[in-house]
Amino acid sequence: MDGGATGDNLGFAWIDSGRSRRTGYPEVVYCMGKTVDQSEAIITRMREKGIPVLGTRAGKELAERIGRRFPDTEYDESAGTLTVGSFCKPEERRGLVTVVAAGTSDLPYAGEAARTAEFFGSRVALITDVGIAGIHRLFNRLEELRKARVIVAVAGMEGALPGVIAGLVSAPVIALPTSVGYGASFGGLSALLGMLTSCAPGISVVNIDNGFGAGYQANLINAIQRS
Amino acid sequence: MDGGATGDNLGFAWIDSGRSRRTGYPEVVYCMGKTVDQSEAIITRMREKGIPVLGTRAGKELAERIGRRFPDTEYDESAGTLTVGSFCKPEERRGLVTVVAAGTSDLPYAGEAARTAEFFGSRVALITDVGIAGIHRLFNRLEELRKARVIVAVAGMEGALPGVIAGLVSAPVIALPTSVGYGASFGGLSALLGMLTSCAPGISVVNIDNGFGAGYQANLINAIQRS
Amino acid sequence: MDGGATGDNLGFAWIDSGRSRRTGYPEVVYCMGKTVDQSEAIITRMREKGIPVLGTRAGKELAERIGRRFPDTEYDESAGTLTVGSFCKPEERRGLVTVVAAGTSDLPYAGEAARTAEFFGSRVALITDVGIAGIHRLFNRLEELRKARVIVAVAGMEGALPGVIAGLVSAPVIALPTSVGYGASFGGLSALLGMLTSCAPGISVVNIDNGFGAGYQANLINAIQRS
Amino acid sequence: MDGGATGDNLGFAWIDSGRSRRTGYPEVVYCMGKTVDQSEAIITRMREKGIPVLGTRAGKELAERIGRRFPDTEYDESAGTLTVGSFCKPEERRGLVTVVAAGTSDLPYAGEAARTAEFFGSRVALITDVGIAGIHRLFNRLEELRKARVIVAVAGMEGALPGVIAGLVSAPVIALPTSVGYGASFGGLSALLGMLTSCAPGISVVNIDNGFGAGYQANLINAIQRS
Amino acid sequence: MDGGATGDNLGFAWIDSGRSRRTGYPEVVYCMGKTVDQSEAIITRMREKGIPVLGTRAGKELAERIGRRFPDTEYDESAGTLTVGSFCKPEERRGLVTVVAAGTSDLPYAGEAARTAEFFGSRVALITDVGIAGIHRLFNRLEELRKARVIVAVAGMEGALPGVIAGLVSAPVIALPTSVGYGASFGGLSALLGMLTSCAPGISVVNIDNGFGAGYQANLINAIQRS
Amino acid sequence: MDGGATGDNLGFAWIDSGRSRRTGYPEVVYCMGKTVDQSEAIITRMREKGIPVLGTRAGKELAERIGRRFPDTEYDESAGTLTVGSFCKPEERRGLVTVVAAGTSDLPYAGEAARTAEFFGSRVALITDVGIAGIHRLFNRLEELRKARVIVAVAGMEGALPGVIAGLVSAPVIALPTSVGYGASFGGLSALLGMLTSCAPGISVVNIDNGFGAGYQANLINAIQRS
Amino acid sequence: MDGGATGDNLGFAWIDSGRSRRTGYPEVVYCMGKTVDQSEAIITRMREKGIPVLGTRAGKELAERIGRRFPDTEYDESAGTLTVGSFCKPEERRGLVTVVAAGTSDLPYAGEAARTAEFFGSRVALITDVGIAGIHRLFNRLEELRKARVIVAVAGMEGALPGVIAGLVSAPVIALPTSVGYGASFGGLSALLGMLTSCAPGISVVNIDNGFGAGYQANLINAIQRS
Amino acid sequence: MDGGATGDNLGFAWIDSGRSRRTGYPEVVYCMGKTVDQSEAIITRMREKGIPVLGTRAGKELAERIGRRFPDTEYDESAGTLTVGSFCKPEERRGLVTVVAAGTSDLPYAGEAARTAEFFGSRVALITDVGIAGIHRLFNRLEELRKARVIVAVAGMEGALPGVIAGLVSAPVIALPTSVGYGASFGGLSALLGMLTSCAPGISVVNIDNGFGAGYQANLINAIQRS
Repeated sequence: MDGGATGDNLGFAWIDSGRSRRTGYPEVVYCMGKTVDQSEAIITRMREKGIPVLGTRAGKELAERIGRRFPDTEYDESAGTLTVGSFCKPEERRGLVTVVAAGTSDLPYAGEAARTAEFFGSRVALITDVGIAGIHRLFNRLEELRKARVIVAVAGMEGALPGVIAGLVSAPVIALPTSVGYGASFGGLSALLGMLTSCAPGISVVNIDNGFGAGYQANLINAIQRS
Repeated sequence: MDGGATGDNLGFAWIDSGRSRRTGYPEVVYCMGKTVDQSEAIITRMREKGIPVLGTRAGKELAERIGRRFPDTEYDESAGTLTVGSFCKPEERRGLVTVVAAGTSDLPYAGEAARTAEFFGSRVALITDVGIAGIHRLFNRLEELRKARVIVAVAGMEGALPGVIAGLVSAPVIALPTSVGYGASFGGLSALLGMLTSCAPGISVVNIDNGFGAGYQANLINAIQRS
Repeated sequence: MDGGATGDNLGFAWIDSGRSRRTGYPEVVYCMGKTVDQSEAIITRMREKGIPVLGTRAGKELAERIGRRFPDTEYDESAGTLTVGSFCKPEERRGLVTVVAAGTSDLPYAGEAARTAEFFGSRVALITDVGIAGIHRLFNRLEELRKARVIVAVAGMEGALPGVIAGLVSAPVIALPTSVGYGASFGGLSALLGMLTSCAPGISVVNIDNGFGAGYQANLINAIQRS
Repeated sequence: MDGGATGDNLGFAWIDSGRSRRTGYPEVVYCMGKTVDQSEAIITRMREKGIPVLGTRAGKELAERIGRRFPDTEYDESAGTLTVGSFCKPEERRGLVTVVAAGTSDLPYAGEAARTAEFFGSRVALITDVGIAGIHRLFNRLEELRKARVIVAVAGMEGALPGVIAGLVSAPVIALPTSVGYGASFGGLSALLGMLTSCAPGISVVNIDNGFGAGYQANLINAIQRS
Repeated sequence: MDGGATGDNLGFAWIDSGRSRRTGYPEVVYCMGKTVDQSEAIITRMREKGIPVLGTRAGKELAERIGRRFPDTEYDESAGTLTVGSFCKPEERRGLVTVVAAGTSDLPYAGEAARTAEFFGSRVALITDVGIAGIHRLFNRLEELRKARVIVAVAGMEGALPGVIAGLVSAPVIALPTSVGYGASFGGLSALLGMLTSCAPGISVVNIDNGFGAGYQANLINAIQRS
Repeated sequence: MDGGATGDNLGFAWIDSGRSRRTGYPEVVYCMGKTVDQSEAIITRMREKGIPVLGTRAGKELAERIGRRFPDTEYDESAGTLTVGSFCKPEERRGLVTVVAAGTSDLPYAGEAARTAEFFGSRVALITDVGIAGIHRLFNRLEELRKARVIVAVAGMEGALPGVIAGLVSAPVIALPTSVGYGASFGGLSALLGMLTSCAPGISVVNIDNGFGAGYQANLINAIQRS
Repeated sequence: MDGGATGDNLGFAWIDSGRSRRTGYPEVVYCMGKTVDQSEAIITRMREKGIPVLGTRAGKELAERIGRRFPDTEYDESAGTLTVGSFCKPEERRGLVTVVAAGTSDLPYAGEAARTAEFFGSRVALITDVGIAGIHRLFNRLEELRKARVIVAVAGMEGALPGVIAGLVSAPVIALPTSVGYGASFGGLSALLGMLTSCAPGISVVNIDNGFGAGYQANLINAIQRS
Repeated sequence: MDGGATGDNLGFAWIDSGRSRRTGYPEVVYCMGKTVDQSEAIITRMREKGIPVLGTRAGKELAERIGRRFPDTEYDESAGTLTVGSFCKPEERRGLVTVVAAGTSDLPYAGEAARTAEFFGSRVALITDVGIAGIHRLFNRLEELRKARVIVAVAGMEGALPGVIAGLVSAPVIALPTSVGYGASFGGLSALLGMLTSCAPGISVVNIDNGFGAGYQANLINAIQRS
């Protein structure tokens, strides 16, 4: 078969170099479902063109290869995120995104959200283990919570945390359901449905385990003020 | 076809007169899916045998027919419950079952639970409109809640109420999911899954909209102490 | 059963008068699943306390009753929204929320979103019939779209519209799936799943047909800048 | 990102030391989804504070590490439960919880329920292999069954056991569906739905495979009498 | 468009007159989804060709029209079955098919099964209201049950009846799940899954509410012996 | 809210007059979910611009209104299709599309497919009542079937017809699942899944009940040869 | 916890020695979900009591252990069946059960059905690779098929085979859906739904991959004639 | 059990040598679910009879065995396709099928479609990484796209690509949903539903990940013109 094509094309992938112009942010490399070779080639090409890189769902082998090639690589193994170069320097980050995780098992997804929002220019705070089974733990953190311009609320199982938070603050809440749980959790479905049908307004939801999407959307919202 | 059979048989139904001996409680007449004639015949036969009757999901037409026949009929239209005769006199009710409803639309199911628990011998209190979108309303009622020996927590949509309550009290919580909601509520599925997967222990769940089952189970639990 | 309770309680409902203090916005009356009498009583009590009212999923009968009682009632039959009093005067609205509807059948939900965002203080523009089957219609409106601070993208069927838009603009997109469609749409499930799994970042999703939730969230986000 | 926080916080987890005061029972450590290091740190901190520990879904490696550190560790490999210290001494256990398992494959979940109820202070009896395919086996045990104050009925596949039992006894039945089965069992869904829709009243249901939840709820109910 | 075709064709339907030769039984008229005119035309044509007719899911209007045209029409309104002519005279019926219905609401489906098996040549007995919530009612009928060559067990809700019966008899059991129930019954899904996953062997299952299919299959099995 | 916009815009809809240039075919008016007024306005505007109109899912009231306004209106009530003007004259139709319907109840959907393919320029033949329960009826029509350039195979219930046909002919088969059936048909899901997973290659599938989509695709394929 | 109990109890399992008396057939050992030790202990105890053993879903390790202990062990690795002793000698088998498999991948399940029916006393024939994609292969075997007293039809994917067969023969068809397939097969769901909703009568269905259940039911039916 | 049978039968499989005569194309070997030995035997027998072979879902071990036996074997590891002999020589391929893949992870399925269409006689072009998140990449390729007689559009996640393409071209689009994605993708369900419910006509859909089916159907359509 004849492959065809033009532009900055790696055959299996096409660097979307105009994305920054259209949306204000560079493309991100989603590494799951790509071979390590494919991810490496894409990241390398992006760095050659001077594009700062955020890779998500990155495994250890890829991180090591990239780290050997680019010394400014930073890898968060728990969150599965990898950055090379910086889109926004730490001291230039603006506005506070607070990521709230219901339980310890939700931390990898919370971490992915946090790293993503930071990469694109938000200041990020993390509040952990405040699930609704012991709701006073959440109330203890209310003052902190109210400082946030945007909140990412992360929970598996019944996914009730975002609804409780949305009733207590005026910031918009991005709800991130996780696949944490078993049985009738059906891989995160219970948390997803719970968040979508919450009786509290001020919530919108991203895909199950999609820490990247939650962090990206939180940063977009946070960025409105600065423009 | 030859119909066959023995005992106290109405052809289409068989009065389970031994149920009281086995489980301590008389049979209940579930009127949905039966014709008005069938329900009337069953109730009449039970009254002839001196069995106190609780009918659930009873429509207005049935209630009127039964009311004309038996002057001590009591009908709660919103809850769809109908009683003829009493299993336990009001002054003999013992132990407190508190039914907590998240929203106004949950009241018919809460009512069915309350009427059932009362019929079988529990004292019942009702707390309404304390959904998690305004969680302080629940905290205002905490002292009341803690007086209950058993709690029935009723909610549709994301069904988070039982989990929040179970983290605050030592009484067992019977969670009653309702079909209140739309879209991703999928007829009560979201509330059901949320209650089953709650991160708080001390909850067990009945079928969607099954106010009768919740009230019956709450009364069974409440009755343990008295025996 | 003994009903109990304190505060501003209608028995079946409890006006959450502290909500404004906690979240910055008054409570909204969701009329579906309440009797016309119940909705009327709640709205009347809120007006007595000077709270501006937004009612959603309001039927014609309720609108007429409220209209007779309060001359400043405004009712949008297609959107099912009813307002009495104003939370924010038209001339004080700030920031642009653009609601984009894929097809004619999506208009009621788009209307609910638009009316909600306006009620709480946003300026709103509406773009209609730009579904992806004729994507040039969307491109014709790109300049308009890019003026928005927040976009609500409304679609049934495959729900692809928000993903296409999110790849073209820098504003956050609130995706509102609708139950428009048949067969494998499964009451809006196809649109919901499509929006949740979109390959484009910058999207978060509300419940199927939840125009109110989308408009509320869009206004929350839009309001960040003003504080 | 800045982590923040106060109290007895391990960073990834927060010991809920007020839980005992609120609900009468200490927190339990759910080990699935936590790293062995995380679980070990939580258990160690709890023991330092004198809190008796029940760990569920605990693997062998964790059990060995904890066993080396705390000589009074008890581990039930089949049930996946681990205890360190005691909340209630064996001789102080009160009231009988009977756990009934339909088949051999249900034993791990039955075991988790039994160990949990014992830990929190119930006496526990176990009846096994009495599935409805040979219902006389259940009838042979009826006298034993009727001694229970609370029954936990454990079954996979069609999950019919709790319904049969509830029609024979006056004790409340906690139904525990398991993922035992294949094909149309859909990971325990058939048992779960069967238990929720049982035509027999006196049943409430916990999540699929949630032996802990069933045992906890059974103990809560059993404990009512003693207070 | 050109319609085309040959044989005994009504345009919208084609009488399968060879069916009797292939399978031993004439075609049956399933009236749901056909207009009354279409059903009438098909039945009339079949009678003209001397084929005995069984119509299922037949409404009252159709029954009246057919009754006026053919005096030997028999209509069972509850079961929705209509017969014109006889395939097998009552006195020639052989072998006993016993239809067992769990509850009163299952009777229409049980009736459809019974009428179908009779029409095709089986003797039929009916046992009603023996659901597993009062399982002694079933045991009282055990002797009768054991006389059957084939059993059709009809139940909604959790659908446990066929499994209990199959463990008690040596006859094959055809399980007929019904849509009786609500909430987590999901239109008969719970009963269907329960019957498919029963731990008792000797069961095979037909579609939800498919009384015709159950009766037809029971008669086929019953007929084996006679050939 | 300000409505905005340019072009041939009815406010609630936008006539896609460039569609013909892009895809070779004019836009179609899908009438479900639009008010009669909206549909009438769209059709009228299209006729004013000289565009031939095919309306689908059109009700009787709309058909009557359009018929009064445009004398060349043709309405097929069973199929729900309405045409005004012609895109391709009958004598100019080319290539044979054969629509095969499994049962009488599938005819409305088969009709929608047939009318659509004809409108856009195909010759159409219809073969009815050849479901797989009497497969010889299909074999009798094999010669006819093999004359088709494209086949649309329409079936509800188990949806096996397209797979059987695809194994017998060399033409591509468009499979159209219908919602005909009950119980485990789940509104056409069983037919849809059956068609998607058929073991015979040469099949592709459209949405449940989507006669329009099947006829449109069949015509597109049929039209290839003519270009 | 105190274990309790009487009778022939292995602690984790209870040999149902009365089963033969009730149903005419001994218990079968379902080995999945049991440890190899548990299965071995059960089989050994059964042999000690002289009960002939059929084990299903038996792995190689178990087969080897049992083979060493009992020389008359027979193991069919593909089907996962293991027999020790015989319930019915080969020369005493009566009546023909024909197992028809759609494809090569269905053979393990077909084998389980065949071995089971043989063990309990049926003669068995096997017809393979006659899926509906090449339906003439089925027609070539029609004469053979018509010799069967009972047919087991095995298919994955769309599961159409049983429906086609049921329209061609007068024997009852037991439909065995398999998990063969991928994507929209959803682990056998498509085949299961297809078989349940088949438009051909004379079919009843067992659980996905339940070769044992199909063979057992086929033998029960086959055995009717002999009694 | 006696195996029976005639014709070109391998016992576990039956070469359908008449398929070419009926449908114009030889049988294809689907290797998943077959042992390597079975696949090898089938391929060898086909080659002995001179039939050109296309094997799909072929693993490396099989490819190596076949390669050693037949030197003209070609294996595409990413696509999992293996050919031995040729059905149509490269220089005789006619008509252009264009396979368009949304993302890098969709390439294996796109490859299977491309290889299949080529094997059966189509010329094939491949366009990659044109997902709707950066829709300008698709517009850059529009001229290429419009040269295709048939388009296969491959996408996971929300599956919006086929709908966008179908609105831009006049060729029929075969939509191939893939299991690429996570969370609410539910193994490809979101893409499947999105494609089935697309608002753009001119699309028909194959099973999730069924590259073979898409390529086969595309070639059938492409071949119409040549006959």
